[in-house]
Parts: sequence; C-alpha cells; structure tokens
Amino acid sequence: MNEFELIKKYFSRLANNKSSLNLNDDVFFDKSKNLVVTVDTYVEGVHFLDFKEPDNVIKKVLRASISDLICKGVKPKYYFISGSGNKTSFSKKNLQKISKSLKQEQKKFDISISGGDTVFSNKLSFTIVCIGFSKKIIFRNKVKLNDNIYVTGNLGDSSAGLSILKKKFAINKILKNYFKKSYFVPDIPFNLVKKLHDFANSSIDISDGLFSDLDKLINQKNYTYIIDLKKIPISNNLKRLLHIKKLKKISFISQGDDYQILFTADPAKDRIINKISKSLKVKISKIGKICNQYQKCQIIDEKGKKIAIKHKGYLHNF
Amino acid sequence: MNEFELIKKYFSRLANNKSSLNLNDDVFFDKSKNLVVTVDTYVEGVHFLDFKEPDNVIKKVLRASISDLICKGVKPKYYFISGSGNKTSFSKKNLQKISKSLKQEQKKFDISISGGDTVFSNKLSFTIVCIGFSKKIIFRNKVKLNDNIYVTGNLGDSSAGLSILKKKFAINKILKNYFKKSYFVPDIPFNLVKKLHDFANSSIDISDGLFSDLDKLINQKNYTYIIDLKKIPISNNLKRLLHIKKLKKISFISQGDDYQILFTADPAKDRIINKISKSLKVKISKIGKICNQYQKCQIIDEKGKKIAIKHKGYLHNF
Repeated sequence: MNEFELIKKYFSRLANNKSSLNLNDDVFFDKSKNLVVTVDTYVEGVHFLDFKEPDNVIKKVLRASISDLICKGVKPKYYFISGSGNKTSFSKKNLQKISKSLKQEQKKFDISISGGDTVFSNKLSFTIVCIGFSKKIIFRNKVKLNDNIYVTGNLGDSSAGLSILKKKFAINKILKNYFKKSYFVPDIPFNLVKKLHDFANSSIDISDGLFSDLDKLINQKNYTYIIDLKKIPISNNLKRLLHIKKLKKISFISQGDDYQILFTADPAKDRIINKISKSLKVKISKIGKICNQYQKCQIIDEKGKKIAIKHKGYLHNF
Repeated sequence: MNEFELIKKYFSRLANNKSSLNLNDDVFFDKSKNLVVTVDTYVEGVHFLDFKEPDNVIKKVLRASISDLICKGVKPKYYFISGSGNKTSFSKKNLQKISKSLKQEQKKFDISISGGDTVFSNKLSFTIVCIGFSKKIIFRNKVKLNDNIYVTGNLGDSSAGLSILKKKFAINKILKNYFKKSYFVPDIPFNLVKKLHDFANSSIDISDGLFSDLDKLINQKNYTYIIDLKKIPISNNLKRLLHIKKLKKISFISQGDDYQILFTADPAKDRIINKISKSLKVKISKIGKICNQYQKCQIIDEKGKKIAIKHKGYLHNF
C-alpha cells in the first residue's frame, strides 16, 4: 500500500473539518481564518542524498516546502524547522552554514523563521512547516474538461543533477555545477504567486514527477489527460546532456524534484497566460489537455506515437 | 552546547518577526491573526521508549503537543502529524491502533487532524504541529517578583511509569498499570485552559522536568525561586511506591514528562485560584515563590534543609 492509499484509508475519516480538504491536497486551508499550512518531512537518503552540503540541503528542503504554498497561489510568510540529527549533522560549522543559507532564503522569499525544534536522532531529517495567509487558494481536483495543461520553467534539470551526484554518469564541470544547482536550489516560480489566481483552475507543484503529479491533479475526477512530450520544456543544458550522452528526455522529465507549477486553465485564458508569462519573465509552456473519461491518459512522443510511462514518480511504499 | 544555546546562537537572529517570540517560548503567536502554533518532534528511543504500544505512544506525543498550547491558555483546534517510519512501524495493525487512538483523542480534546506527511525512514519519529486561535497567550518570562509558583495535578507518576517500563524495579500489577498509564496518557489539565488567563502571569508545561522548566520560566529575568519540596503534589500511588521501594520523592518529581502546568501568579490571586481549582475539579498546588536576583534558587526539603538538584531535567545535548 502506498502512502496515499494509506493516508486515505486510516486518516481521512478522522479529518472531520472542511479545512483539511479531506487530506487530499498538499495544503490545509481554513477559509474563515485565511490560513494556509503545509507540513512536510525530509529524510536523509530518501528526500536528499546525504548531508555533505548542509547549505544546499537546507535550501532544497525549504524550497520544496515553500513551493507547496506558491503553487496554490499563496505567498509564504512564516516557516518552522524541526531538525532531528546528531552532533556531526549539527556541528558548529554545519549550523553556521545552515544559518547563512536560511538568511539568504529569508531575504529572497520574504519569509521569517518562527519556531521549530531540535532533537537528537541518529537519523537526519527535517520537518518543515510553512504558513501563509490568503482569502483563496487554487485547489487540486478542480480541473475542467478541455482545460489546457501548463507547466512553469523547465523540467528534468534536477533529475539530471541527482544522477550526476549519484555518479550515474560523468559530465564536464560547467554542466555538472549547473545540474547540481538545479537539484539543490530549484528555481521556483515565486513571482507568479499572485497572478496564478487570474487563470488557473487547478494546480500542484511537481515534486513526485510530472505524470505522478498529473494523476494527483485529476484524482478525484474521472478526467484523463493527453500530453505532448515535445512540448515539455527542458533547458538548453539538458538538451546538450541528452545529446552528448545519448539519453532520452522521458527519463528525466518524470523523476520529480522540479518544484515547477503544473496547472490547468480554460483555453480562453491562453492569451492572458502568455502575457503574464512575458511581463513577469516566468516561462510557461502549454504541454497538453484535460480530456474526458472515455479516453485513456495518453502521452504522445516526438514521433507522434503513444507511449506508456513505466515510472510515474516517487511514491513512498510501505 | 545544549539545544537551547544552540537555537539561540544560530537561529534567533533569523527570527526577525515579533510572532516568533525570539524562539524563546514553546509557541509561536501572531497577535494580529490570533494564531498560535507549536511544532515538536518525538523520536523513538529519545522521547518515547519504543513502539510496542503504538496506541499509547501516539496518545503520549499528541498530548505532549496539545499541552504546549493549553499551558499558554490556548485551546487547540487543529493538529498535523508527520510520521517517519518503516513497514513494521506503519503496518496495517499499527495504523488501525493509531487511528483508533487519534479518534478517541479528537473527541476528548475537541480537535481535528488537518494534514501531515508519511515518509519512509528506518528511524521512527513523529513531528506534531498543533494550532489554536486566541487573542492572547500567557508567556514565559513574565514572572513578577513575589509571584507565587503553582503546579497543576500531580508530578512524578510519569517518571515512575518510565522506570517501570525500563524495568528499573518491579511492582504489583495495579501500580504498574497506573504508572504506565501516567507515562503514556498524561492527564493534562484541559479544563483549565480558558480560566488560566484570569490569574497566571507566566506559564509553561512541565515536559523536561520541574526545575528545568522553572529555569526556562525565569530565563530572561534575573529572578530566582524558592520551592518547598513537601508541597510538591504527588499521587497516593506514588507515595505508596516511595514507601514500598524506599525511594526518594525528589528523584521522581524532576524527571519531566508530567505535562502539568507550572505557572506563577500574584499572591492576591490565591483565593480565586483555589476557587477555580475547586469548581473545575483541577488540583492546583502552591509550591513556592519567585524571589529577587540577590538570592540563589533554593529548594527546601522535607526537613527544612536546602538541597541541590543534580539532574534538572532532560536537555538535548549535541
């Protein structure tokens, strides 16, 4: 049983308040208090490879949490960190690095640490709570038939970075640094946060993987989707990597950790989306369409052929 | 360096918002939003012994978190649980037990699960976020000179329970069950939550230990305290245990995990405190006094002698 089935089975019946959204969204939203909350735990070896670069790891986990609010059209205000670790993880040197990174992130995203906990454990993990205030949020599960599917930024760079860190292949230093940075410090589309309400019917951030998150986006509806693989945006550096190493695009764009926003919008909104994209300098690409329940989910490859996705993304199987 | 010094040194300078209370209280309080938040992590082997009784452990960690709000005079409304564990910890059987326990706690404390996370880890831990709404809270560090020091309920039962679970001594089944229950399911003074504002100048819950938490209560002031050991309330069962096993009271009442409220109040409030104690049927005992900075903290034992406390409570040393 994977984590979603597990949560659904045992805990959603306890979530007897509207604000929990039946535990079926990435956030909690109390409309009467304008309160939006997200809680996520990141474990060494699962959500981040190791702690050799604490300055980078802390940025990665913080951005992953901020991203949950931003993709809902909510500006984060406060964050809390609860760190479990040992003397080595929380050495003076590491704490200095973590503190410096947090200071940079606070400035960049206009957020402020507000509490947390530090406990001893021989397993390193961080739980991050992120809080924002908003009168409305963009939900999952509000996709409409014939909505266009959009994604911000580029996908796959983070996955390439992880492969390089795992030494799956070697590459020149410039590309290595580029992809490593994409893995640790994803360029989340912060500027879009306030404009998202102008056009998005439904949204999610890409953390588990494009297709896995697409499934979550439509999971309470009977809709399907059609995705055009060649329209999925990737960076010039990833194009170069694919060319040099003779690798396939599909194996990078569905691995997750992108922290870009996946959203759907009415086709009539296409013009305004392009306009906002240009004015805010946030790349937005139309990659597919929401279809009706009588079709199957389809992915069209570069040659126009339908393909099946083997690995939809990362699920925590218990 | 212990966890408090550590947090202070590296993170309090990042807490550039009033609501964080300089990371110097157990809660976060945004006055303009009436929002109170607490975030705590509980690790197997550190905060709870093991996971042989998941139904009891989940109650213990949830109550420990709720207690942080209650001692501030804030009724909890929402809670979030992020659990890290493996297949064994989160087996179907265990999840059923956890779910059943949570349902009971939700009813008892009028709270509702609102979100969280479940992640894979070979080390079991829970992070619990608890949220309440209140126009005001009772702070730490607002003790006043000559304030009386009070404590709710009885102390030491939980510590006796832990000693029994650790097989430090054997005892008859009735006492064993009583102390075990005190350890896992502390009887937190929930009814007092709304009345606390009527009299308390400063408050904290006893989680780390009476004397350790007393130090935290006065840590930003130069005050000292005098505590009368014989006035520290213990249960008849603990009295019996001390008698049977020839153990000392002091070794139980300073170990923490009591989740009773430690507060200070103006001597003029003594009458109203006794009145509320009777009407709500919540035991409240006056155990000492806040003194001035020219004295030393003193504990007076049963024979009227000053004694030193060796083990003030549990600190996470890194």
